[in-house]
Amino acid sequence: MKRIAILGSTGSIGQQTLEIITSLGSEYKVVALTAGSNDRLIAEQARKFKPEVVVLTDQVAAKRLSEKIKTETCLVKAGPEGQIEAATWPTADLVVMAQVGFSGFEPLIAAMRDGKTIALANKESLVVGGEILERFGLLNRKKILPVDSEHSAIWQCLGSSPLKEVRRIYLTASGGPFSGFKKEELERVTPEMALNHPNWRMGKKITIDSATMINKGFEVIEAKWLFDLNLDQIEVIVHRQSIVHSMVEYIDGSIIAQLGTPDMRLPIQYALTYPERKNSPVESYNPFGQEFKFEKPDRNLFPCLDLAFMAAGTGGTMPAVLNGANEIAVEYFLTGKIKFNDIAGIIASAMQEHGLIKNPEINDIIRADRWSRRKAIEIITRLTGKVN
Amino acid sequence: MKRIAILGSTGSIGQQTLEIITSLGSEYKVVALTAGSNDRLIAEQARKFKPEVVVLTDQVAAKRLSEKIKTETCLVKAGPEGQIEAATWPTADLVVMAQVGFSGFEPLIAAMRDGKTIALANKESLVVGGEILERFGLLNRKKILPVDSEHSAIWQCLGSSPLKEVRRIYLTASGGPFSGFKKEELERVTPEMALNHPNWRMGKKITIDSATMINKGFEVIEAKWLFDLNLDQIEVIVHRQSIVHSMVEYIDGSIIAQLGTPDMRLPIQYALTYPERKNSPVESYNPFGQEFKFEKPDRNLFPCLDLAFMAAGTGGTMPAVLNGANEIAVEYFLTGKIKFNDIAGIIASAMQEHGLIKNPEINDIIRADRWSRRKAIEIITRLTGKVN
Repeated sequence: MKRIAILGSTGSIGQQTLEIITSLGSEYKVVALTAGSNDRLIAEQARKFKPEVVVLTDQVAAKRLSEKIKTETCLVKAGPEGQIEAATWPTADLVVMAQVGFSGFEPLIAAMRDGKTIALANKESLVVGGEILERFGLLNRKKILPVDSEHSAIWQCLGSSPLKEVRRIYLTASGGPFSGFKKEELERVTPEMALNHPNWRMGKKITIDSATMINKGFEVIEAKWLFDLNLDQIEVIVHRQSIVHSMVEYIDGSIIAQLGTPDMRLPIQYALTYPERKNSPVESYNPFGQEFKFEKPDRNLFPCLDLAFMAAGTGGTMPAVLNGANEIAVEYFLTGKIKFNDIAGIIASAMQEHGLIKNPEINDIIRADRWSRRKAIEIITRLTGKVN
Repeated sequence: MKRIAILGSTGSIGQQTLEIITSLGSEYKVVALTAGSNDRLIAEQARKFKPEVVVLTDQVAAKRLSEKIKTETCLVKAGPEGQIEAATWPTADLVVMAQVGFSGFEPLIAAMRDGKTIALANKESLVVGGEILERFGLLNRKKILPVDSEHSAIWQCLGSSPLKEVRRIYLTASGGPFSGFKKEELERVTPEMALNHPNWRMGKKITIDSATMINKGFEVIEAKWLFDLNLDQIEVIVHRQSIVHSMVEYIDGSIIAQLGTPDMRLPIQYALTYPERKNSPVESYNPFGQEFKFEKPDRNLFPCLDLAFMAAGTGGTMPAVLNGANEIAVEYFLTGKIKFNDIAGIIASAMQEHGLIKNPEINDIIRADRWSRRKAIEIITRLTGKVN
């Protein structure tokens, strides 16, 4: 029996995780569920999966939830502390981290301190916290199972190969909906256009991050920490078909790639069933008649990719600034307050104005995140001439 | 220190194996070399690599060889018994089987009986002998390291995964030089055209086998025995670029593929250095700007593929008949005595006329091989109206 805590259960990855747990059957048991404020959906999930604890970070929503599931035996907790409690829940064998953005940072640190095995979908927590986890000796790579399709692919391609046999990895990128566009065309991009990802069914935040390609930049940083690589061992390669999910090149010139239908349930299930594989509801990929292409990413069209490499190279609090400013910019873009092409500029300005702290403490990271968000809003206000 | 015996050292795989051993350095030592009749080349190899024994199956050539290397300390042996001696050479840790055709059968049986670890490039020995090795309990899969690029790919993709997690494998085929031809165009194919393989540098016999696609059929049978698969788990897929060397699909829908520059030195080196990987002289493959395509094989244009599936399904002595008739047909095609399109018909007729022996003994296999060769010559004589 595997006992699972899901942080971010009402999001896209959270819901698909529950779907996979249902399909896997009685060997998998949900013990904790957390979300932000969606009391309606998490109540439904609690009734169906009967966890030991349910958490909403929003206090008001948590009250409504208590009312909704008062006939259930599970505990209801509220606030960010509740997330930490769920991340270290005593009966959980595996903690699925599927929150959005920086909110995953403290739960990740707590879960790693607690020695939990983590199925990590929240890449931002490792983007901002990878360095600190490594420095504090908390980055136990055997206990972080990647859920991102690219990192799951690398993980599957690595098998039990030692790091010294790896020459480089190729992180594949679909290129998002705007691959091949002209810079001017990107000026007219609406949130609806950006949310229309060609290959993947994902949450809103990551879909916009995919469209700017900052998501691939985050993945580069995530890969660096997950697999203990140097940045110059990580190549981003555009593969619009999204069938090859990533590749590893070994020192003998052999490349191992992982392929499949673009369906997040596949990497989710692998993280749950690891080290075994089990039958899955994911459709078998039929390669006959197919064509794969591989291209260089257009770094001029998607400057966010270089910003991510820069932040990773700088280290310290800089990745937290990259991420914080991006979270704000995405939010403002989604509500129509800034243009798509403004996103990179906002992040770049925040990074330029940041007073870097090397070898930061946890609180320095949290402060850099907050500073970056305030700074991004300030930049947006300057830019649009409005106070939002 | 790994001590290596190379059977078939003057052929394409044998020479490339020696090249890799030179590049790997002093941790690898050649202890035995064997060939057919090329005394000039094997003498050179003996002088350079200083093995303990050198074998030529041709008795006359072996005499010339003794003369040529009389100042060396190594033993010279002659005849097919010499091959068996080399295959079970006491100081050899690894036996590279790189002979051509049926001549690998008895050395393979002997080496497996002796508990040797084998780097297998001679697929025909497993095509004709896989069933018998399995039935006699001699097919120790942990001790056969594949050298064929496709089987090396499957082996690399499998890692330590258990068989029950494998749904199917895709054996890639370049399609040879005549992929996309019309049946009538194949009528006019010369040996020179058939020997001009688009992607791989290989020996003559396997290059013709590639052109008829019987090579892929042999590989299907080889894969069945190497990886303990059912025939219906093995798909042949045409990939003219020859970059993806084969793929494994798991029960969860995940596909692992192995890619790289089409260079036999890569799988050869992996078999030598396994379980480690080491730097190799093979050029790193650059995927940027590349395109891969996958198609169904044209079973109408290349009937040899179905003949191989039929022989494998029938089992017993039938694969030996498939192989024996093919060896003769290829020989006659290479000397211009039959047409390219005759090859499949000759094999099919031999298979039809064969009195199958189920659960054969070793001698039944040897007799079936001889019968098939005589029968093929008889069919060719009927066909061409000449006695060759």
